[in-house]
Amino acid sequence: MKKAYIVSTGTELLLGTTMDTNSVFISEKLFENGIRVVAKSIVGDNEESIRRAFKLGLESADVVISSGGLGPTLDDLTKTIACEVMNATMELVQEEVHRLEDFFARRKRKMPEINLKQAMFPPEAVILRNDLGTAPGMYLSKNDKIIILLPGPPREMKPMFINEALPVLIKECGSECRRAHMRTIKVLGPGESQVDEMLSEIIDDPKGCSLALLAKDGEVHVKVTAEGADEASSQVILDELSARITSKLGDGVFGYDEDTLVSVVANLLMERGKKVAVAESCTGGLLSKMITDLAGSSHYFWGAVISYSNEAKNLYLNVQNATIEKFGAVSSETAREMAMGIRNRTGVDYGIGITGIAGPEGGSETKPVGLVYIALADATDCIVKEMRFVGGRDGIRMLSARTALDILRRRILSKG
Amino acid sequence: MKKAYIVSTGTELLLGTTMDTNSVFISEKLFENGIRVVAKSIVGDNEESIRRAFKLGLESADVVISSGGLGPTLDDLTKTIACEVMNATMELVQEEVHRLEDFFARRKRKMPEINLKQAMFPPEAVILRNDLGTAPGMYLSKNDKIIILLPGPPREMKPMFINEALPVLIKECGSECRRAHMRTIKVLGPGESQVDEMLSEIIDDPKGCSLALLAKDGEVHVKVTAEGADEASSQVILDELSARITSKLGDGVFGYDEDTLVSVVANLLMERGKKVAVAESCTGGLLSKMITDLAGSSHYFWGAVISYSNEAKNLYLNVQNATIEKFGAVSSETAREMAMGIRNRTGVDYGIGITGIAGPEGGSETKPVGLVYIALADATDCIVKEMRFVGGRDGIRMLSARTALDILRRRILSKG
Repeated sequence: MKKAYIVSTGTELLLGTTMDTNSVFISEKLFENGIRVVAKSIVGDNEESIRRAFKLGLESADVVISSGGLGPTLDDLTKTIACEVMNATMELVQEEVHRLEDFFARRKRKMPEINLKQAMFPPEAVILRNDLGTAPGMYLSKNDKIIILLPGPPREMKPMFINEALPVLIKECGSECRRAHMRTIKVLGPGESQVDEMLSEIIDDPKGCSLALLAKDGEVHVKVTAEGADEASSQVILDELSARITSKLGDGVFGYDEDTLVSVVANLLMERGKKVAVAESCTGGLLSKMITDLAGSSHYFWGAVISYSNEAKNLYLNVQNATIEKFGAVSSETAREMAMGIRNRTGVDYGIGITGIAGPEGGSETKPVGLVYIALADATDCIVKEMRFVGGRDGIRMLSARTALDILRRRILSKG
Repeated sequence: MKKAYIVSTGTELLLGTTMDTNSVFISEKLFENGIRVVAKSIVGDNEESIRRAFKLGLESADVVISSGGLGPTLDDLTKTIACEVMNATMELVQEEVHRLEDFFARRKRKMPEINLKQAMFPPEAVILRNDLGTAPGMYLSKNDKIIILLPGPPREMKPMFINEALPVLIKECGSECRRAHMRTIKVLGPGESQVDEMLSEIIDDPKGCSLALLAKDGEVHVKVTAEGADEASSQVILDELSARITSKLGDGVFGYDEDTLVSVVANLLMERGKKVAVAESCTGGLLSKMITDLAGSSHYFWGAVISYSNEAKNLYLNVQNATIEKFGAVSSETAREMAMGIRNRTGVDYGIGITGIAGPEGGSETKPVGLVYIALADATDCIVKEMRFVGGRDGIRMLSARTALDILRRRILSKG
């Protein structure tokens, strides 16, 4: 499998204001085409840093792909440095001079002298067309190493990489450029170290696959990559191992690859023609927002009441004032009345109620920050779960919303 | 000025699925504290890559800050490698063992054996507390070089970096660590190129400051950095220039630095003892979620109805079926009835109604995707704005919620 190293240049990427999205895009496309990114460097428009990054890249990988630094100004340095480390000499390419002159003529301007720099290339390089800006890219292959230079602006970089650079790269890598077989198994319930223990036997002997665990927003993702001799055998190894993993983890597994908890619940509701309505307190609209992030959610989402005050609980959900007085707004009883209230008022199949203390204030000895009650009402029953989450206001709210979706998921599944 | 090198570890950061937001956050905080980031490396959970990145970091900078790889599993390697390159030896720290045992006990679980690894540190290191997870961080200073290890999950990394690591770092850097005088002026309304034109005179002659414009979620941030000879003169230059910028941009400026649109509106409501309630359709709970992101929002937020169906609009907001039939669910008239409906039903000072087409489906010739009506009802009036947003479902929803907040902000301010 060929290895790639990505270099993103631009001082703005080091100031904490601009995100380096280029390398993420490039990584994804490389991965899909069976080229593995071993590391990335993000450096300023600084000669020494760029040189170091290119050298480290050529040491660690077969292909170095950089973006940025192809403009006409003094701090645009990548092409010069790339040619230096690759031992190549640039000369003026007349065809590119004409292209630049045209570019400016179409905008009714004369080409500034300084742009001539953008028409300099080593004769052995492939020049990558840029229809959206003045900076052409460069593909230079020499002594078993490849350097690809792309412009910095994403709207110029993306089409150039996809249409101009990637085809040449894939052609040159030839049969070596094999698509990796990868699957992500998504788990909710057990934490990372629990999943690690549950899978210890498989992790010790992954049968031709590599495994990685990743904890994210309360979920654990098990990433499995198969590296079989060929396409077909990779697929077989991957299918076998992911079946074994899924059986070890049971109903903690909620989905695969592109699935999200929301999309999985959405599909379950749609397949069965069911609708849900939500009554949210501490999550303050987060659960509804997550459900409606998906286009088409109006098919199964009736709507919600964000009952952030006691009056709202009473007015819109029929929560009894006596219940709130006796047990408190954060109580199993209130959660139950919220879930049943929204279900009764709206006539949908499932009503969810969430009430809790997201913090950082408002906790007490008996009802600490992180205490959340989640209720689910359907035609036969109303179940209430008491949860104790840890992790700051945002974390507690996120875990509450996700747990509510997971309770709904398990409830629908248990009914077959 | 001290130099820093950031290392983000995690194989998921190389696959094109996960964005490295940690290094962006760390860069910003370092910059604010006068420490310059010279480069970043993003590497997989791979021993050799991590070692190379640490070594390059120590060669190029005074401080190396890494995130990720502090978990209990086999592919968590950063601490071991950091100690190796810094020539330090780890031993088991009993206090940390107890902290870990407590962490699991509070979750009614026994600590797995593999977590013991997280209690190993060199005696000369400062252990950085992690209240939100099992992985403590580490601050190790030796032979004029500093390595700081932080956990990967942003919600654990951020508080640890701000509260535990940065104070030690600033203390150790001493007077060298000069705070750059920086102010961010936040604008909503005019776009980036409009702001650029409005400030052209200042941009051409920024009087000892540097200016950068950054477009973000529909806002434009003007970042002003003063580099005067000393603290006092920097402050003077900065104050003068930001006053000039603010006067050029008028009421488009909604806040400064840590202000967010939500926090600014929250303060306006609180100062005046006013309350708001919200009726959301296309935003699906996003506006409520944004308002309740702030702790203490129950002081001014009554709650919301997410009227994702026509029945919800009718049942909870008194929107007339005839209105929906005649003008459609996405119409100025429906938005008005939503805002007035929620205000009348709840008795709060301000009622907001949002209805629109977030897409990607559901648009038509006359009502295209991006068409959004936002209504604001108060005691004297109900204003409705018709907006035509561009930018995908998430973007349209985000812009709708922000515009609603901005309409409320301007309305409150216009009343003095």
